[in-house]
Amino acid sequence: MDVEIITIGDEVVTGHTVDTNSAFIARELTELGLTIKYKSSVGDSIELMEDTFRIALKRAHIVIATGGLGPTDDDLTKRAIVKVFRRNLIFHEEILDDIKARFRKRGLEMPALNQNQALLPQGAIFFPNKLGSAVGICIAEEGRVFIALPGVPSEMKQILTDEVAPYLRNLHIGQAIKVIKLRTTGIFESALAELIMPGLRLESGVRLAYLPSYSGVDLRIIATASDDAEARGKVNTVVKYLEAVCGKYIFGRDNDTLESTVGKLLRERKQTVAVAESCTGGQMGMVLTSVEGSSDYFLGGIMAYANQIKTAQLGVSEKILATDGAVSEVSAIAMAAGIREKFGSTFGVSITGIAGPDGGTEAKPVGTVFIGIATPERAHAKKYQFGIDREINRTRATFTAIELVRREILGIG
Amino acid sequence: MDVEIITIGDEVVTGHTVDTNSAFIARELTELGLTIKYKSSVGDSIELMEDTFRIALKRAHIVIATGGLGPTDDDLTKRAIVKVFRRNLIFHEEILDDIKARFRKRGLEMPALNQNQALLPQGAIFFPNKLGSAVGICIAEEGRVFIALPGVPSEMKQILTDEVAPYLRNLHIGQAIKVIKLRTTGIFESALAELIMPGLRLESGVRLAYLPSYSGVDLRIIATASDDAEARGKVNTVVKYLEAVCGKYIFGRDNDTLESTVGKLLRERKQTVAVAESCTGGQMGMVLTSVEGSSDYFLGGIMAYANQIKTAQLGVSEKILATDGAVSEVSAIAMAAGIREKFGSTFGVSITGIAGPDGGTEAKPVGTVFIGIATPERAHAKKYQFGIDREINRTRATFTAIELVRREILGIG
Repeated sequence: MDVEIITIGDEVVTGHTVDTNSAFIARELTELGLTIKYKSSVGDSIELMEDTFRIALKRAHIVIATGGLGPTDDDLTKRAIVKVFRRNLIFHEEILDDIKARFRKRGLEMPALNQNQALLPQGAIFFPNKLGSAVGICIAEEGRVFIALPGVPSEMKQILTDEVAPYLRNLHIGQAIKVIKLRTTGIFESALAELIMPGLRLESGVRLAYLPSYSGVDLRIIATASDDAEARGKVNTVVKYLEAVCGKYIFGRDNDTLESTVGKLLRERKQTVAVAESCTGGQMGMVLTSVEGSSDYFLGGIMAYANQIKTAQLGVSEKILATDGAVSEVSAIAMAAGIREKFGSTFGVSITGIAGPDGGTEAKPVGTVFIGIATPERAHAKKYQFGIDREINRTRATFTAIELVRREILGIG
Repeated sequence: MDVEIITIGDEVVTGHTVDTNSAFIARELTELGLTIKYKSSVGDSIELMEDTFRIALKRAHIVIATGGLGPTDDDLTKRAIVKVFRRNLIFHEEILDDIKARFRKRGLEMPALNQNQALLPQGAIFFPNKLGSAVGICIAEEGRVFIALPGVPSEMKQILTDEVAPYLRNLHIGQAIKVIKLRTTGIFESALAELIMPGLRLESGVRLAYLPSYSGVDLRIIATASDDAEARGKVNTVVKYLEAVCGKYIFGRDNDTLESTVGKLLRERKQTVAVAESCTGGQMGMVLTSVEGSSDYFLGGIMAYANQIKTAQLGVSEKILATDGAVSEVSAIAMAAGIREKFGSTFGVSITGIAGPDGGTEAKPVGTVFIGIATPERAHAKKYQFGIDREINRTRATFTAIELVRREILGIG
């Protein structure tokens, strides 16, 4: 069945908000075997919304719209739905009670405006929202399904995953599709392709895509077939090939992240890690602790942004700072060893560099980063030359440091 | 002039990558006075790309496509352009030299595949790429302009800002448009609307939108008029009104961020800050240091994730941990005072809470966060009840803590 995804809001059309919603929806529905045929965006205008909804209902079986369900003036989606489907708005007491309880729980009184959110088009079913006050709305009519979800990404995701996906799974029987993403790091897209391409043979219905990001390159294999087993077989053939030619760069699959992979390795080995961060200012700690249960292996760390903190808290000698500088191999080693000793962790990891845009010199241009690691046996550091963008440099440094822990644990050179 | 933005790549259509590019492009071009009429996405298929390009060139004056310019097999944009415009690919030595130099600078040899990136459609002009190897391509023909940019966001942004925007500014004369975004924090969208709506009168051609995010709610005012002065006047009328009714929640405008605003305040006052983070694991440090030049006022901090670190490094007594617990007002105060004293900063800020999904109790459910601040005069902490999502809780805690610093500096209650 064909799907159209519509994102609603001036903020999307004018670009003041990045639309992360349509990507999430597309991904989830693709994995249900549905085909995303159209994506469109429309601003906060009832007339344009009506037109957009009508066109979508003509050319797609399933239409999913996000945005414009909030309590304020510019949230017009419900009014457009009512016009397109020629229905009245009906008040739902149980929805209002739920919204009131949500505010009460946070010690707040519900603003009167939120009452609007208890109004639904006649005959619509609603999908509860566990994270906010705007419920999802679903109208099925003449073989078409129209679903409206709130635009706040966390709320949309929760409703889509918990409510909409099971609902749609019941509706359709499609071609079997199997998607696997192999996640690599530490190698460029083009170098990866040079390893992969020479021996690659793809069966019909199988596609391989390279998806680069700052933490690495994902290899996505999509196979379609008449049944599940055949689709799975086709994907597995490619996976085996890829593992053979570039296995050491593959750290995980699908929803694995580098930080969750490293976390699993540390937990299995009952090892711990502490970090000493300069130019990343806490990003490595933040990324490591984005994993649920990371307190099992992450003890903490020191953000040593000012040089006096590197000396006072991590024992980087003033001599090192004066001769080699804060951004140097010896400084990175001293920071890694310092944090390991001070926090009593298995591994100490350090990041010190010039994130930019200022602070670069001829010998150490912007993008120069040293990453150090101290283990029970040794301490060493490596120099990296990233680019000129501050945020990208920090992100690259963070993920490179996490990858360094993975390689240290697994003994990969 | 009407614009169509096309994002290219299976990863966009299937949702494996979030399309941040079209939002950025839309924003930049809207501020040039251009009108974004269509946004579309197309997968990695030459035929579908050709169709999409042809339709776009019929209905829009300016077509901007992103993605599919990389060196690997699945990057087909250039091949589709060549077909649509019926041109040959021409080799550009100067582009190849530049790509080679880029790899050399990082101590790497250029993979042979990257040679493809020196091929351009005949008659196209190219926009240099300072951050990567894929240049932007521009073809002007029969009153239409077609521009193809790489899909890597940082590269696309650099080329768009430095090259494409000036190029397009020369091309068109449009209606005057003025956009101002007032950034608020510390108040819900609905409560904000209740302050604003009663007295709000909008002139024709003026629109006000509420744009909520986890760091606050932005108020965007867009005014169109026949000339610049009139558009500016219309916007300023609304700005003055909003400042009168909800000024204390407004921390900045347009590209101001909460962290850059607080940074400016600290720098002006020659004050410094240090942080003690538990559940946020370094996020506050990371956000504060995302601002260029933040070393002027950010000294560093301690990620005290494990309780023994709170005791050993921040002086949170074992008695406090045993009686009140690590997530408590007294613990937050001790952490803030501890980091201030240890690092010698003007302000010490602490965050300790239960980010979830585990670790909640009846008395302290998931989302309970204490944020503390120590100043030369006093130390105090406040309790917050956020929601159930780990990442959102951490982000809310981070920005609430930064807002607390702003309020402390400015003496806002």
